[in-house]
Amino acid sequence: MSGKPRVVIVGGGFAGLYAARTFAKAQVEVLLIDRNNFHTFTPLLYQVATCALDPSSIAYPLRTIFRKHDNVAFLMGTVTDIDTVEKHIIVETAAGPVIEPYSHLIVATGTVTNYFGQAAIEKHGFGLKNLDDAVILRNHILSLFERAAWVNDTGVRDALTTLVVVGGGPTGIETAGALYELYNYVLKNEYDSVSPKMRARVILLEALPQLLGPYPERLQKAAKKQLESLGVEVMLNAMVSDVEPDTIYLKDGRSIRTHTLVWSAGVKTSPLVQKLGVELQKGGRVPVEPNMRIVGQPDIYAVGDIAYLLDEEDKPYPQLIPVAKQQGILAANNILNAMAGKPMSTFSYSDRGIMATIGRSRAVAWIFYRIQLTGFLAWLAWLFLHLVALLGFRNRLSVFISWIWNYLTYDRSVRLILDTSKDNQPLKEMADETT
Amino acid sequence: MSGKPRVVIVGGGFAGLYAARTFAKAQVEVLLIDRNNFHTFTPLLYQVATCALDPSSIAYPLRTIFRKHDNVAFLMGTVTDIDTVEKHIIVETAAGPVIEPYSHLIVATGTVTNYFGQAAIEKHGFGLKNLDDAVILRNHILSLFERAAWVNDTGVRDALTTLVVVGGGPTGIETAGALYELYNYVLKNEYDSVSPKMRARVILLEALPQLLGPYPERLQKAAKKQLESLGVEVMLNAMVSDVEPDTIYLKDGRSIRTHTLVWSAGVKTSPLVQKLGVELQKGGRVPVEPNMRIVGQPDIYAVGDIAYLLDEEDKPYPQLIPVAKQQGILAANNILNAMAGKPMSTFSYSDRGIMATIGRSRAVAWIFYRIQLTGFLAWLAWLFLHLVALLGFRNRLSVFISWIWNYLTYDRSVRLILDTSKDNQPLKEMADETT
Repeated sequence: MSGKPRVVIVGGGFAGLYAARTFAKAQVEVLLIDRNNFHTFTPLLYQVATCALDPSSIAYPLRTIFRKHDNVAFLMGTVTDIDTVEKHIIVETAAGPVIEPYSHLIVATGTVTNYFGQAAIEKHGFGLKNLDDAVILRNHILSLFERAAWVNDTGVRDALTTLVVVGGGPTGIETAGALYELYNYVLKNEYDSVSPKMRARVILLEALPQLLGPYPERLQKAAKKQLESLGVEVMLNAMVSDVEPDTIYLKDGRSIRTHTLVWSAGVKTSPLVQKLGVELQKGGRVPVEPNMRIVGQPDIYAVGDIAYLLDEEDKPYPQLIPVAKQQGILAANNILNAMAGKPMSTFSYSDRGIMATIGRSRAVAWIFYRIQLTGFLAWLAWLFLHLVALLGFRNRLSVFISWIWNYLTYDRSVRLILDTSKDNQPLKEMADETT
Repeated sequence: MSGKPRVVIVGGGFAGLYAARTFAKAQVEVLLIDRNNFHTFTPLLYQVATCALDPSSIAYPLRTIFRKHDNVAFLMGTVTDIDTVEKHIIVETAAGPVIEPYSHLIVATGTVTNYFGQAAIEKHGFGLKNLDDAVILRNHILSLFERAAWVNDTGVRDALTTLVVVGGGPTGIETAGALYELYNYVLKNEYDSVSPKMRARVILLEALPQLLGPYPERLQKAAKKQLESLGVEVMLNAMVSDVEPDTIYLKDGRSIRTHTLVWSAGVKTSPLVQKLGVELQKGGRVPVEPNMRIVGQPDIYAVGDIAYLLDEEDKPYPQLIPVAKQQGILAANNILNAMAGKPMSTFSYSDRGIMATIGRSRAVAWIFYRIQLTGFLAWLAWLFLHLVALLGFRNRLSVFISWIWNYLTYDRSVRLILDTSKDNQPLKEMADETT
């Protein structure tokens, strides 16, 4: 180890990634830790789950990103504890636990699915927060359709092809729209020669009286209308009360026969934040000073979805990728400022608005919180901004073109039921015995 | 069910696929059964295992292939029994066992890895016969490198980065070459800033005194020389006697410290052939008449790797894709001939030669068993023939171009450790309770 200060960054999502990049060529040693060996472009997870994209199209090896940054090391593992007195962390790796010291720590571990303590939903539902989730959901849906093709009982068959998405935020809307398109443009054509009566339903449940909470009413209504014009059934004021393997029960007494509950109705911060020794705010978020330093912890910074910081209107900054990126960069710069004895900068969010896509030529966008776009124009804006984001993150124009190609040709080419769990024994056998 | 004859085809590999295609538009009802929902372009499996290709690039949904063939139905499942008296089969599906009657049956279930009864090799070794195998091997190798980067003990670290391939046939040679290239062109650059002493070894073990058994001596030697020029260590006359989690023991007393044994040293026919009620030949192969009908079973045909048929020189036809394709087509045509009261045709192999690739610009080819090519020319021939084969099988020029692009740019972009086994419970929970 060199004599340079050692910054440890926990989490290779957008916040952690942009923090690490900011240290390139600086006189610090950086250790980036993530439980995966890749960064995930999460806005397109739903496209992996709905067979439009390969997992590798939205994941990029972290070591490749930092191949030319000699001061950035990568460790694959899960941070299980933080010792703020000794200034080190404990990382659970495939080779057992290791201790890594830090001079400065950036925690950027993001959120996990929040089932709000409802064990039945957690047991039977499918999250959509990471690449594993997306592949598992893809396998599940394709398997159900294979089974449905050979079932004669109408009720049983319809339950197999009824897909329910819970949560009327951007992820829920995008997923519901993409699921219906997967059925309507692809699966329908491949099953109808055998089972002409096979049909799918995609139902979007939202507990509130409207979709897309933070959007203006006009866009909320446009989103609902566009979803319905596509074929998705939208049910508002619909709260899930219980789930069984083949049924979802709603609070108002209704029920839906289905084997697929995609839960996009909430997130909570990753468990690691409980090791920070501070009182957490709403959603388990970590209170930070405007310079991104954790309140009461001079050498620890929290950035991205786990950070709790109020804007000028006393509302917490939203858990969005642009916030995460900007906070990651700010925390890294403030660590460099502190080392150089310079004053720290405070967070000021450069916000270009919010948008959600619904399906082919369908989207809503609220640009700079002034311009409200719906339909094809909003969809073009969504495409353009994701193109820019994906390119900024890595130079993979060809992937994006192939994605647009898929999208325009109505094809979904990645329809593999690929479950690598069964034969996994050798992996564990040969991997568990070195230390 | 219609009144038409019902042909059941077991196996969606090359033999089964080409048989099913031959029935397109014929007055028969076809049921194609496979345990996967996709056909696998097996010659490129080693490229998935070595991070060069996405799984979806070499797998194509069977339903898509037969989308326009109204007389071909698909059932995902594993055939567990054949009742030749009642003329039906038992298929284990996700919804339980189902019985499917046939008027004619084509068995095309191919081969599985043969560990020759050596339990230790089966437990610790990695096969490379299907897409699951390829993804499991990819995950395993990438995980070992992540661990090796943080190990200080030289012996332990070298064991993690020593990759052993057993079997000097085409698969073993291709895999060993591709593994060394993965290390040499990609992984080396990503780990050396952190662990400058990290180095990998790729060792190819062959029990016989030469590689590529059926090839002429000149090509056998050229293959060995090319592998060694790449960086692969070739050990001939090397038989594995035992395997432990971190060591391979050879019969001659030598041992290799490693956590990775890729077993490409043998295949045997799938277990289903034991249900055919015939005496099996060498390698568990099923004796067939020259019209591909199983000896003593008038309505059952065996095609591809499971079929045992002698050529003019009294040698069994090799277990190769061109043989499988041609036998699948012949069996289908002979069933149509039988139905029409026409005489059956007999198998005559149109054989253009054999080839094996070793790595970038390295290959050996024996074209029409007359022209012997090595090096760049052989590699170009390999590329060209696989391009033609892939295009014949589906129109996916773009995938092939992207693959050549990867190959030429020395990149391996699919380096994800993606294990979907852990959270798989919901899939099983919600899938197991319908019938």
